[in-house]
Amino acid sequence: MNEVRYKPIGIVHSTFKKPQNVPIQSVASKGIKGRVELAREYVEGLKDIEGFSHIILIYHFHLSGDYSLIVKPYLDENSHGVFSTRAPSRPNPIGLSIVRLTKIEDNILHIQDLDIVDGTPLLDIKPYVPKFDERKTAKIGWCTNNIKRISRVSDDGRFARACG
Amino acid sequence: MNEVRYKPIGIVHSTFKKPQNVPIQSVASKGIKGRVELAREYVEGLKDIEGFSHIILIYHFHLSGDYSLIVKPYLDENSHGVFSTRAPSRPNPIGLSIVRLTKIEDNILHIQDLDIVDGTPLLDIKPYVPKFDERKTAKIGWCTNNIKRISRVSDDGRFARACG
Repeated sequence: MNEVRYKPIGIVHSTFKKPQNVPIQSVASKGIKGRVELAREYVEGLKDIEGFSHIILIYHFHLSGDYSLIVKPYLDENSHGVFSTRAPSRPNPIGLSIVRLTKIEDNILHIQDLDIVDGTPLLDIKPYVPKFDERKTAKIGWCTNNIKRISRVSDDGRFARACG
Repeated sequence: MNEVRYKPIGIVHSTFKKPQNVPIQSVASKGIKGRVELAREYVEGLKDIEGFSHIILIYHFHLSGDYSLIVKPYLDENSHGVFSTRAPSRPNPIGLSIVRLTKIEDNILHIQDLDIVDGTPLLDIKPYVPKFDERKTAKIGWCTNNIKRISRVSDDGRFARACG
């Protein structure tokens, strides 16, 4: 299959300067503020987005290291297939966060509940619509007994690219 | 910013052979069956995914045409910025669907509630976890008065690449 190429549409600014200690999901980072800086050429595409309280950010995990197909996720002591985890090191390191949209100024989106490292290249913004994006489900596999740990666990750098 | 390159990890098979008439969200395609064919090199990454009843598919809208920053979405007569819609023609044509996982056979994932056209290149699979992916929100902007139309509206090809 052909390679797919994307040009980032903007950049995420946050107080997290490195992957270490970033909350591992946006539900664990309530109130943490940041900004999306959209490239000016796309500003017209924001029309009417201020009506949505939450938006979906799709971005490139630019600091993630080489992937393994079997990983030990933050929330468990056991190993799982990478596709049954949300680990940032993946065959295609694409991240997905639902954040709160609080204000728009020109090409800047002010957001909250941020679990994204500073400087992350943004690929897409979609409106979050509960009717589209919620599923009532009882089955969350290995997360069932570990989900309660989410507010106590943050990124320890295990998936970060080695630096220096 | 640097271009991002991804190699598809698999392909989505469905009964929808072209964009026309595909349901516009997976909530509008309850019970419609399809398959994900994962490239064999990634099969190990599926370990433990069978414990999840729903998975998130991230894929490339390979048939979408050139994007406009202002679009008229399926659900409304009015135009909106592309980032406040889920239109498939976007600066980076990345699609996101939550589907039901019913069975796994080797490198084949049997799925239901499918709103994806046959042959779509798959970029990522993530487990769907309500705690991570649900937000109780009252604000859905222009969708507020249009969301009830979702089961009556399907793709009319307006975002499809011109063929022939």
